[in-house]
Amino acid sequence: MRDPRFDILFESVKIGPKTTKNRFYQVPHCTALGTFSPHATAKFREIKAEGGWGVVNTELCMIHPSSDSSPSGGERLWSDDDKPGLQLMVEAVQKHGALAGCELTHQGALAGNRMSRERPMSASPRPAMDVPAVVRQMDKQDISDVRRWHRAAARRARDIGFDIVYVYASHMMGLPGDFITQRVNRRTDEYGGVIENRARLLRELIEDTKEEIGSDCAVAVRFGVDEGLGDAGYTCSGDGRRVVEMLAELPDLWDVNVQNINLDVMTARFADEGWQEPFTAFVKQVTSKPVVAVGRYTSPDRMVSLIKNGLVDLIGAARPSIADPFLPKKIEEGRIEDIRECIGCNTCLSMQYMGGAIRCTQNPTTGEEWRRGWHPERVPAKMSDERILVIGGGPAGLEATLTLGRRGYSVALSERSNFLGGRSVLESALPGLSTYRRVADYRIGQIHKLANVDIYLGSEIEASDVADFDFTTIVVATGSTWDRDGIGKANRFPVNGWDQPHVITPDNVMAGRTIEGPVVINDDEGYYLGGVIAEKLAKQGLDVTLLTPDPEPSPLLKYTSEREAVHQTLLKLGVKLVTARRLVEIGADEVEAHCIYTGKAIRLPAATVVMVCLRSPNDGLLHDLRRTVAENPPMFTVHAIGDCFAPGTMADAVHSGHRVGREMDQTPIGDINYLIEKPFVREANGWDQFASGR
Amino acid sequence: MRDPRFDILFESVKIGPKTTKNRFYQVPHCTALGTFSPHATAKFREIKAEGGWGVVNTELCMIHPSSDSSPSGGERLWSDDDKPGLQLMVEAVQKHGALAGCELTHQGALAGNRMSRERPMSASPRPAMDVPAVVRQMDKQDISDVRRWHRAAARRARDIGFDIVYVYASHMMGLPGDFITQRVNRRTDEYGGVIENRARLLRELIEDTKEEIGSDCAVAVRFGVDEGLGDAGYTCSGDGRRVVEMLAELPDLWDVNVQNINLDVMTARFADEGWQEPFTAFVKQVTSKPVVAVGRYTSPDRMVSLIKNGLVDLIGAARPSIADPFLPKKIEEGRIEDIRECIGCNTCLSMQYMGGAIRCTQNPTTGEEWRRGWHPERVPAKMSDERILVIGGGPAGLEATLTLGRRGYSVALSERSNFLGGRSVLESALPGLSTYRRVADYRIGQIHKLANVDIYLGSEIEASDVADFDFTTIVVATGSTWDRDGIGKANRFPVNGWDQPHVITPDNVMAGRTIEGPVVINDDEGYYLGGVIAEKLAKQGLDVTLLTPDPEPSPLLKYTSEREAVHQTLLKLGVKLVTARRLVEIGADEVEAHCIYTGKAIRLPAATVVMVCLRSPNDGLLHDLRRTVAENPPMFTVHAIGDCFAPGTMADAVHSGHRVGREMDQTPIGDINYLIEKPFVREANGWDQFASGR
Repeated sequence: MRDPRFDILFESVKIGPKTTKNRFYQVPHCTALGTFSPHATAKFREIKAEGGWGVVNTELCMIHPSSDSSPSGGERLWSDDDKPGLQLMVEAVQKHGALAGCELTHQGALAGNRMSRERPMSASPRPAMDVPAVVRQMDKQDISDVRRWHRAAARRARDIGFDIVYVYASHMMGLPGDFITQRVNRRTDEYGGVIENRARLLRELIEDTKEEIGSDCAVAVRFGVDEGLGDAGYTCSGDGRRVVEMLAELPDLWDVNVQNINLDVMTARFADEGWQEPFTAFVKQVTSKPVVAVGRYTSPDRMVSLIKNGLVDLIGAARPSIADPFLPKKIEEGRIEDIRECIGCNTCLSMQYMGGAIRCTQNPTTGEEWRRGWHPERVPAKMSDERILVIGGGPAGLEATLTLGRRGYSVALSERSNFLGGRSVLESALPGLSTYRRVADYRIGQIHKLANVDIYLGSEIEASDVADFDFTTIVVATGSTWDRDGIGKANRFPVNGWDQPHVITPDNVMAGRTIEGPVVINDDEGYYLGGVIAEKLAKQGLDVTLLTPDPEPSPLLKYTSEREAVHQTLLKLGVKLVTARRLVEIGADEVEAHCIYTGKAIRLPAATVVMVCLRSPNDGLLHDLRRTVAENPPMFTVHAIGDCFAPGTMADAVHSGHRVGREMDQTPIGDINYLIEKPFVREANGWDQFASGR
Repeated sequence: MRDPRFDILFESVKIGPKTTKNRFYQVPHCTALGTFSPHATAKFREIKAEGGWGVVNTELCMIHPSSDSSPSGGERLWSDDDKPGLQLMVEAVQKHGALAGCELTHQGALAGNRMSRERPMSASPRPAMDVPAVVRQMDKQDISDVRRWHRAAARRARDIGFDIVYVYASHMMGLPGDFITQRVNRRTDEYGGVIENRARLLRELIEDTKEEIGSDCAVAVRFGVDEGLGDAGYTCSGDGRRVVEMLAELPDLWDVNVQNINLDVMTARFADEGWQEPFTAFVKQVTSKPVVAVGRYTSPDRMVSLIKNGLVDLIGAARPSIADPFLPKKIEEGRIEDIRECIGCNTCLSMQYMGGAIRCTQNPTTGEEWRRGWHPERVPAKMSDERILVIGGGPAGLEATLTLGRRGYSVALSERSNFLGGRSVLESALPGLSTYRRVADYRIGQIHKLANVDIYLGSEIEASDVADFDFTTIVVATGSTWDRDGIGKANRFPVNGWDQPHVITPDNVMAGRTIEGPVVINDDEGYYLGGVIAEKLAKQGLDVTLLTPDPEPSPLLKYTSEREAVHQTLLKLGVKLVTARRLVEIGADEVEAHCIYTGKAIRLPAATVVMVCLRSPNDGLLHDLRRTVAENPPMFTVHAIGDCFAPGTMADAVHSGHRVGREMDQTPIGDINYLIEKPFVREANGWDQFASGR
């Protein structure tokens, strides 16, 4: 079934004493699960092994309480107490023939130690990260301690069965990386100065780990070969290359990327697939050891060329393995069109920073594998002969249709417009968001394979129509509309003058309305759309001001690692930024805004005002249907999903659509709009040690 | 022993079916422990009961996964699974004759639901809090669900033995509060419009709770009687008062405060003790039920007058009960001078927002009661005849001296200057920080009671001197010095021109140096001192610019709830704020700064430049002593504590001093500078269910 040109992807690779079953390598990546959620972690990683990844790694696994990333989870091997939790993952991964890897880490300067209260330490003093403290300079005893802890953690990792054990020096989150960059290391001893000295700790940790467990496990190094800062940091043609050259044959594997995490994890908005290649390409030339690198790759052809061109031996993936844990298996089975491609939105990463459950726009089962028992590729068979009408073909409606269709229900999907995809298609026309269309494309492609789903485009439905059909369940997915009235964070009541023709919303912008400058974008939301629209209009040559009550544009993008890139992009495009101001009045050709701290007024010229505030659910039909049901029970059951239930992210909408599809006819029975007592299984925490795994 | 004028504080108060043993009432407050740390929570609350508080409450206790405050802890009674954890606390509190209360909460709009993925909901749509979502409007079924969950949670609280069960409508974190304010509630049904309608949900929840468990438990209401926003919100002379009047006799207790949490928890920098009194004073006049209110009260005389003047029946406390869990007992035993007074710095609260272990500047045992076994009033007796020299009488040195002295060791405290207290005294002279002096005052007062401690002021010590004495242990607490070179977040290398006479540091400002304007404060730290110095100099009439690479001044004060107050204060004083700029060059009378996003240069006039960047440990003596020891072992043992080990907060310094005092001669033995494998006991998490409590 497999296309022979992809055979090379399924070759084994020898990594020290271990051998992979193929070249698909899930690099270590964060989950917001980790040590506090061992069952959820084990299942999350197991699904990837089942999906064909030849190597499945942990996330950052801290070696000592002086590297405490609370409240972010992360893994821990601080002591033997942490072994049983991680062992669950090792066993789950190896069951499917994959190798299990553990990314041992001491975070150095980046460890906030908010729980442990140990003092952060690093090569030289620097400000601690988001805690009021100075990172102390490590002395010889500290260095010796870290080496001892790393050895102890390596033994623990080996003892619970890991195949690969990492030394981590990347993302400015690994202590040996702090030593390598002169931006941190100002030491004058044998750990400072020339690159041989600055790389000493990395060398020692590799040697220690090899000595300690090298006969049992492969020892990998994860190294950011370039700081991504040009001359302001070390580069892949300078010290970054020197480090790999010096230590070339020491580890069993090189896992290479860009040191600055904001650059390594760039979204599709700011970087295309494989953008790290210019940085990491040299590595294969200076080592005989296998090399893995990432690049948000989803195309098997691209993967083949990476190997054939000698860039890597193993295809590294974090985000694509979240969006589709079964990516390798789908290539293996010749089902390329079934791959659910990562859209590069960093919703996954944002949850790590937010401290929530990991989630994915494309894959609604992400993070739900254990606690809700959701498998990305398997759904329960239908349990009744419900005839289902889904109204609205946006992300939520498509996902509900697909899930219900896969379960075997007879489904009709009705869409008012003449296209499917809703906001994923509309937003994909905006600057940097073209990948968002994949949310629609994947689902439409899959739905077209199902004989039990009928699609009706251009179909306007009213409640009275529905009663004439013989549907037993109606799923309403009619989306939301951007509000014009300005109510939001800064204004709890409508803004004076909102009801004028030149006051428009993102819906108008996306519908292609001709816009006259100067434009004031009133971004009270603080997520991506205000900035994206500013970018679009500025690129059209309009005079654009982004007005926001927040201290900076798009503050919520701190969670997607895009905050700085957005700020920079807007300034470079000449967008004027007016922050910490509340829009108070909209006149015919100007607006008045007040400083949120002092009330001081300013006026800005505005021929057009774009309001990016709240969205209102398009729930008129929903309410009509509910009334119909209330008057004539039990005519049919009504569910609301996606933005029409509660406007949120696209990931929220897809999750909501999946949930209604998954839970139809299941226990708990009932309208999922109305929440249930125990929607998912929880990990044992503290006393609550009797909670059971699935 | 007790002063009879304080007798009134020890009278019982009847609260519904329960009776307190006195009038000391620990109101619900957050801990950053909660559901994930049930043993730590139980011990933390138990210590307060042991210390004499008549009532000890939980923190926010969520009733359902649709109110999920992850990653902040909080308590949960989502299901019966949560009962055993909280039961630990109930038993621990009641063992000491205190009543245990549980603050049941549905956070409504404020629930991010980052873990549960339920959609936030409230009275009317509004932006969700720090997550990209619109809070959905609750319909009748939602309201009925919340009431049902609240009843179920109340039963669970009753079943595990709580004496008091709350309905929570304050801090914009309790759903019934969302309904009461028209800033959120725009409903047109019977839950919107007139105040009777907007208070309907609060009334219903009180009635439900009374009906469900009212014969077994007291039912308390926590209500913010004023939004603290003047005409922009409801007030204590308008709707806030109406609500209390309408529901006056319905609950068994009124726990009243200000709805806006940033105003209710103001630091000493922005509000004096009892500042809420003008808002809450009316409550006693309109209800016959007992009333509790807070005000950061630490003086028993003030407490007596509050009761005698008919403002409250019970003295509410959160922060003072953290700073001194034994406050009631000390009053009871006539030991007023032993009270460790809260300094109102909000370090406790900051850890809730940071997601760390709760801590307190004044009380280093906070949060360590269970995991390190630290009791605020009891220390282990000395285990050897070590003769200890503490060098440096700042917060760390004083705390080490006190702790070692209490343990019975013979201690000499040597201080170079002619006063004790170090930075706590120096900073207390700055605007808003006068309470910081309490850190020194408390310790000096306690040390003076100890016969086994000698104090030497004006005593300059060199390593060679120490060898001549017969000390067996030297504790070095020589503090830190602010750097002038500008290295920090924005600059990894010294700033050009830093070494000129007009470039000074906070040390110079605190030493009383005469400063010439215009002044540029280069605040690269982002904590409180940059803003405080700006305030001081602006009040002196100087032209002040605060230059920072951050998007706003004092960003780390988001954790202490002071961010907005600082921003407002600086603007009102005319301080110019230049944000997102990196200081690049200091000239004779101006500085150059570059936009951190575009590199665009600006110039600012500056006769004086104040560098608020890193601090360097004063560790010259420490290194000399270590060399001495290395050359002649085992002459004595050397420990470094506080800022001289690693510059941090005053809370860090005090904790460090306490730790060295506590751990001297204890297992783990050894130099606490060098970290140990298992510094504390951990809660069972997930799989790790075999971790044992102390």
